[in-house]
Amino acid sequence: MAAERSWVPGAEGSGFGIENLPYGVVRPRGGGPPRVAVRISEFALDLAALGLRPGVFDQGSLNAFLRLGRSVWSETRARLREIVSIDSEPVGRALLPLSEVKTLLPIEIGDYVDFYSSLEHATTVGRMFRPEDPLPPAWRHLPIAYHGRSGTVCVSGTPIRRPCGQRAPGTADGTPSFGPEPWLDFELELGFVTGSGSSVGSGADAAAEDVIFGFVLVNDWSARQIQAWEYQPLGPFLSKSFATSISPWIVPLEALAPMRVPGVTRDPEPLPYLRVDRPWALDVELSVGLIPDRTEVETVVTKVNARGLYWNAAQQLAHATMNGASVRAGDLFASGTISGFEPGTQGCLLERSAAVTLDDGSERRFLEDGDAVVMRGVAGAVSFGEVLGRVLPAEC
Amino acid sequence: MAAERSWVPGAEGSGFGIENLPYGVVRPRGGGPPRVAVRISEFALDLAALGLRPGVFDQGSLNAFLRLGRSVWSETRARLREIVSIDSEPVGRALLPLSEVKTLLPIEIGDYVDFYSSLEHATTVGRMFRPEDPLPPAWRHLPIAYHGRSGTVCVSGTPIRRPCGQRAPGTADGTPSFGPEPWLDFELELGFVTGSGSSVGSGADAAAEDVIFGFVLVNDWSARQIQAWEYQPLGPFLSKSFATSISPWIVPLEALAPMRVPGVTRDPEPLPYLRVDRPWALDVELSVGLIPDRTEVETVVTKVNARGLYWNAAQQLAHATMNGASVRAGDLFASGTISGFEPGTQGCLLERSAAVTLDDGSERRFLEDGDAVVMRGVAGAVSFGEVLGRVLPAEC
Repeated sequence: MAAERSWVPGAEGSGFGIENLPYGVVRPRGGGPPRVAVRISEFALDLAALGLRPGVFDQGSLNAFLRLGRSVWSETRARLREIVSIDSEPVGRALLPLSEVKTLLPIEIGDYVDFYSSLEHATTVGRMFRPEDPLPPAWRHLPIAYHGRSGTVCVSGTPIRRPCGQRAPGTADGTPSFGPEPWLDFELELGFVTGSGSSVGSGADAAAEDVIFGFVLVNDWSARQIQAWEYQPLGPFLSKSFATSISPWIVPLEALAPMRVPGVTRDPEPLPYLRVDRPWALDVELSVGLIPDRTEVETVVTKVNARGLYWNAAQQLAHATMNGASVRAGDLFASGTISGFEPGTQGCLLERSAAVTLDDGSERRFLEDGDAVVMRGVAGAVSFGEVLGRVLPAEC
Repeated sequence: MAAERSWVPGAEGSGFGIENLPYGVVRPRGGGPPRVAVRISEFALDLAALGLRPGVFDQGSLNAFLRLGRSVWSETRARLREIVSIDSEPVGRALLPLSEVKTLLPIEIGDYVDFYSSLEHATTVGRMFRPEDPLPPAWRHLPIAYHGRSGTVCVSGTPIRRPCGQRAPGTADGTPSFGPEPWLDFELELGFVTGSGSSVGSGADAAAEDVIFGFVLVNDWSARQIQAWEYQPLGPFLSKSFATSISPWIVPLEALAPMRVPGVTRDPEPLPYLRVDRPWALDVELSVGLIPDRTEVETVVTKVNARGLYWNAAQQLAHATMNGASVRAGDLFASGTISGFEPGTQGCLLERSAAVTLDDGSERRFLEDGDAVVMRGVAGAVSFGEVLGRVLPAEC
């Protein structure tokens, strides 16, 4: 086993040390094709430059690598840990300062599925519409989900245009309103990216260990008035399809091993295909910050731990495939909004009972033009980095 | 302009004459790579063998061609009409008998969107759940839709495994049922495939002429008991994601010009972004046949014309992109179930008030294992061919 220290400057204690080594795709700002890299400290280690696996890392996405499966992922990770270990000769030529590269969307996403796996989120939102009976009848029996738009998933840093759309009629003649969405919201989520592998017949635990490559932060931008008007009976469509942001560095499942914990007890006990024996809850501290463009001062508005999710990734994957549906390398499965009940733990603005006061004294019921939303995640020595997006004014 | 007759044997009157020339992807049964072809009569005209556009037609999907846009599509169609015209020298070497090729899924699908655009379908299904108020409030103001699973769209001929899943609790203790879906259904739809092109700012008519490449038949297989249990509040998921079948030959928009008709009058008048001046309803006669495996005798159970759809393709595209969402070459947009109110015009079994009697004397409330469902479409001299799928027994 490689030493737990690296020759890369600043690696230790950065959240991007030898314990993490998350995968992404970068393009040198000076020019040249994109390539696969792992982040370490404030550098992107260029895997194409290292000469590892020709045809796999000299690519504009991780999909070729994702298709190779668990044993190659493990081998590669072990090799990379050796390469960056304090016991090895430094390979400076493959180390690109992050300031000199642009991080790209790391995967070509096949299908994007979004779950609804936080009991607190589903309960709070449900109470707004059905006070007596907030949870849908199936909620405690299966991880509810829907398909989102994969073509509009974008990488952190991409500006987010406020969408235009129809809203419920405000006038007596019943004509719907039309214009910029006034209730633009974020949703704090964790997502997992799949590789190849079989998810049938082997049970939820084994299938998930086989298929799940790693995790990212997800901001599932949401237009609440469009959503309220359009969502019956087939679910959200335009209220979500304009943009979904993900963090650029995919944290491998193996890096999260020390942060996997048993999680909540489900009551009632789910059906056998949803039972798991291994710990799948992730002890990840998540936060959301708002940064108005006038001040550029960040106010942290949400802090919540992902371990409180009712349904975990193994259950989500087992459910999504138990009808025989296939999973492709590069599919993205997001958790749904991660929330607690305590004030300041809500993963979206909709759930809050009152406006948030920012450090510059201004208040937010929903997002304003120019606001940047930054989500962060830390699991012990492993950082997820951040997913950031700034709201641009609507064009309509 | 090329003559309206072809040197290809049997082309005239076949539905696949010089007026049609739909695009697909075939692989010779004798071996060799896949290539793009157009169907004419009982042949696949191999566009790679013709030497047209190297790098575009010697491909396993139409996506490279779709990315080239309307002017190249039009040019290519004009050239192909010349090549197969009675006035041209026959090119027998590029003409592969359909019996000697396998038709493949013709596109790599980016996102798959499914609408709900038949007033008759939405009303009949809505009455089952909300007799007093069958249509959702937004239904007449916007074409309701959701995203389906693109990774499980398959080509005609692919067997369809009956899915397993959770259904509403049937026992006093509230535990959901689990097992093979008993109410397996088909949904008769038309879908359009997009190329590159701008859909923003130019209006619904111009955007649709620019972006819509062509149309296919779609069978949106549906598991009704899974759907009833899972669909609140985020819409259908596992009840649809196991499989969606499409016909192998994409009929170009240009081939449908003579069959474009004004369609129904919408009341109330929709918002400006949904208004169209050009005729977008398609005068296509659709049918559904059931073929039990014991007898192999087909009973036509549904006949309906697509021109009755409330929302048309141009409106669907305008709506799906009006929030700024992008469209990629190879996206699939399906109409939703196409139904009438008259007996025998329902596009799915769920809408029927009674079992269907087949020609072999057996009855169907829903599909049985071994049943094949075959959907066909004809628009004047232009055939859509068929989309066929046979139900295999569940594995659970």
